Amino acid sequence: MAGKPSIPKGTRDFSPNVLGKRNHIFDTIRSVYSLYGYMPIETPAMELMETLTGKYGDEGDKLLFRVLNSGDFLKGVEDDVLQQRAIQSMAPKIADKGLRYDLTIPFARYVVQHRNDITMPFKRYQLQPVWRADRPQKGRYREFFQCDADVIGSTSLTNELELIQMIDEVFSRLDVAVHIRVNNRKILYGVAEVAGLADQFYPFTIAIDKLDKIGVDGVAAELKSLGCREDMISRITQFVGMKGDNSEQMAAITSLVSESEIGMKGVDEMNELLQYHHLNGTRNALMVDITLARGLNYYTGTIFEVNATDVAMGSLCGGGRYDDLTGVFGMPGLSGVGISFGADRIYDVMEELQKFGAIDPIRPQVLLINFGGDDMIYSLNALFHLRKKGVASELYPDAAKIKKQMTYADARKIPFVVLAGEQERAKSCYTIKNMQSGEQQTVDLDGLVEMLS
Amino acid sequence: MAGKPSIPKGTRDFSPNVLGKRNHIFDTIRSVYSLYGYMPIETPAMELMETLTGKYGDEGDKLLFRVLNSGDFLKGVEDDVLQQRAIQSMAPKIADKGLRYDLTIPFARYVVQHRNDITMPFKRYQLQPVWRADRPQKGRYREFFQCDADVIGSTSLTNELELIQMIDEVFSRLDVAVHIRVNNRKILYGVAEVAGLADQFYPFTIAIDKLDKIGVDGVAAELKSLGCREDMISRITQFVGMKGDNSEQMAAITSLVSESEIGMKGVDEMNELLQYHHLNGTRNALMVDITLARGLNYYTGTIFEVNATDVAMGSLCGGGRYDDLTGVFGMPGLSGVGISFGADRIYDVMEELQKFGAIDPIRPQVLLINFGGDDMIYSLNALFHLRKKGVASELYPDAAKIKKQMTYADARKIPFVVLAGEQERAKSCYTIKNMQSGEQQTVDLDGLVEMLS
Repeated sequence: MAGKPSIPKGTRDFSPNVLGKRNHIFDTIRSVYSLYGYMPIETPAMELMETLTGKYGDEGDKLLFRVLNSGDFLKGVEDDVLQQRAIQSMAPKIADKGLRYDLTIPFARYVVQHRNDITMPFKRYQLQPVWRADRPQKGRYREFFQCDADVIGSTSLTNELELIQMIDEVFSRLDVAVHIRVNNRKILYGVAEVAGLADQFYPFTIAIDKLDKIGVDGVAAELKSLGCREDMISRITQFVGMKGDNSEQMAAITSLVSESEIGMKGVDEMNELLQYHHLNGTRNALMVDITLARGLNYYTGTIFEVNATDVAMGSLCGGGRYDDLTGVFGMPGLSGVGISFGADRIYDVMEELQKFGAIDPIRPQVLLINFGGDDMIYSLNALFHLRKKGVASELYPDAAKIKKQMTYADARKIPFVVLAGEQERAKSCYTIKNMQSGEQQTVDLDGLVEMLS
Repeated sequence: MAGKPSIPKGTRDFSPNVLGKRNHIFDTIRSVYSLYGYMPIETPAMELMETLTGKYGDEGDKLLFRVLNSGDFLKGVEDDVLQQRAIQSMAPKIADKGLRYDLTIPFARYVVQHRNDITMPFKRYQLQPVWRADRPQKGRYREFFQCDADVIGSTSLTNELELIQMIDEVFSRLDVAVHIRVNNRKILYGVAEVAGLADQFYPFTIAIDKLDKIGVDGVAAELKSLGCREDMISRITQFVGMKGDNSEQMAAITSLVSESEIGMKGVDEMNELLQYHHLNGTRNALMVDITLARGLNYYTGTIFEVNATDVAMGSLCGGGRYDDLTGVFGMPGLSGVGISFGADRIYDVMEELQKFGAIDPIRPQVLLINFGGDDMIYSLNALFHLRKKGVASELYPDAAKIKKQMTYADARKIPFVVLAGEQERAKSCYTIKNMQSGEQQTVDLDGLVEMLS
């Protein structure tokens, strides 16, 4: 092999230091999910292509990674398909499996497949990597982790409340200030309806969703091109950057959609959710935002999105309610609501805000210096004892020069080293050095355990 | 989509109950690895095919899962290759990435790629899934987890000792009795040498390795077909099922290979390792076994294999020393030694021995029954308080019939339910029911927290 080995673009190796910080994020999310009664599941990295295709729109389908069939992968491919290089009709024949693109569709597939073993409502969480053949760029990877929680089989808005509280709890524990924006797709539908765009609801939401990218004027232009009533365009865009607390927002929204039955259903849902939210509040602000749309077609009720207050970065968490996620797998009418944390973006925000300072690096507590021969045997006995007492510890494996061994302890940020040569051995004691202060002490084995525990 | 959705053959979904038990195994391995000073890394699921191919033998190459290139995957494929359906030369062109097959080659690639950021000796562990296009059968999956620990950059036999102690510690914590078999590839080479098979060392080890499958007579026949000296065949096969402790085994081995310099080097290494082992011993027996070969070509020194004492099952853990794993990536002469636990087989053994009894199922501690309206609000306040105190808890989201809610608590094995209706609300108290004993008590909010903490 020529040159240094490498990995596919858009993928990453995680070194111990980075992994320590990432695991802090995962552990936090996992423990909050558990606290709220959610249960973990895991699904395979590969799904059948028939499970994946057609679920993420045409753009999504193009971003699916397909896995080549084993053996003679050309078996089912006709000659003319080969000759014409018809990759569209060839792909499904040579690759019937693909890597999962998100955790939502595998969850829907799981629920339908295991319906007889599941007690509804089913609260599940799932922390696993997903793969997308996106063009890699800063903050966008081809392999990244999603951290999802969903509850399926219940329409109660206490579920939405719970998800908001979980978001608040996770970011509080991570010490990252966020604002949690909330909207309801029924309200958006009501707006579309009064704007004369009911039959173009999906393009309407896509236009609204582009606000961050194309600004108010851009959205206004898109609405106009969809055929939006002129007077409604300004009534809609007035909500951009609208000041005022949630009750003022709700008053304005109510007046906007008052003539839409579905819109008013959305207003009722939002008011009920806000009422529950008032019972206990959240440390991070919950903000009603009618300009929040979420591009995904399957949302039908409450939708959420979370942004860092102090760092410009895409959303750190998002989600919403869907009324029929499992219908596509033959189990219609099951309502659910869920959220997904983007661990990679949260990591980047925490790095930028220097929030990892308090996380202990992953490393043993002590290194025993190796002087070889009987001295090594003497140190080995201390090592066995320390580990038995639960102290993460190691002996430098070779009797290398002390300087080299000390450099190793330094590089790995090991806080203590133990030196035990002939002198120590004669007195049945150990010299322990604090690597930060340089302070040295001579103690017996029990003292050593005590200092390091 | 017609019929029930499913997943690719050889892959699995993991439900909360199974995951609870699996995580117990992973957590145990992870905490033992940490205790011994090993550091976690993670590598991407996809590696470049040039990293993977040629590392696992011809058979292994066939079992690699390839990932189809995105976009026009036929771009680099010539017409005649298509016409001739030349899948061998086509595959590398349409799929330049593949799923990792084990954790050893990605680790070697990682070490070489990040050589400037790594302090040697480097002790790493890695718990991640791997993928093999093997024919699925009982206990053999296409996606399964490996749990590896390796130390690279040190030739000291204290590393081998440490790995043996880690194996012993993991199985002790899991309460699974095992025997740890140990051999040295240099001893095997010595045997091959005195048997006149030095130039056929690899086929020789493959023959020995088949002992479990083809028995003593089968091995004898294979050795004969390799051209093994007649008198040596019986001298080699006498070791099968040989009784006697490690020092008796070593005496017999020493006499067998005494004329091979490399063989005697292996004997010296084994004796040194046994000397270290005697310092502290292990709870599970360490057994010298000259018939242990391990098929993999890259092992050059000590080799290990672990089997359950009370269940007939393939090896639960294996490993060994390699002198030149990174050479293939342009970094020769780096010696390392490692082990790999097979979590799936350990799971099966523990199920068979019913060793999961003491593992708490994953579920919240308490379910608050939902009576709707003001009663629900009253229960919500208790829920907020319980969670703030760290009690994993949930409110049934809908005001369904009590029977349905109790059935839900039963099905999820939630140990306590809280009932708070108008009566409780009037007295600012809660009725808590132990689901196992059926016992009920009425307590205030503090009492509730206390009972559930």
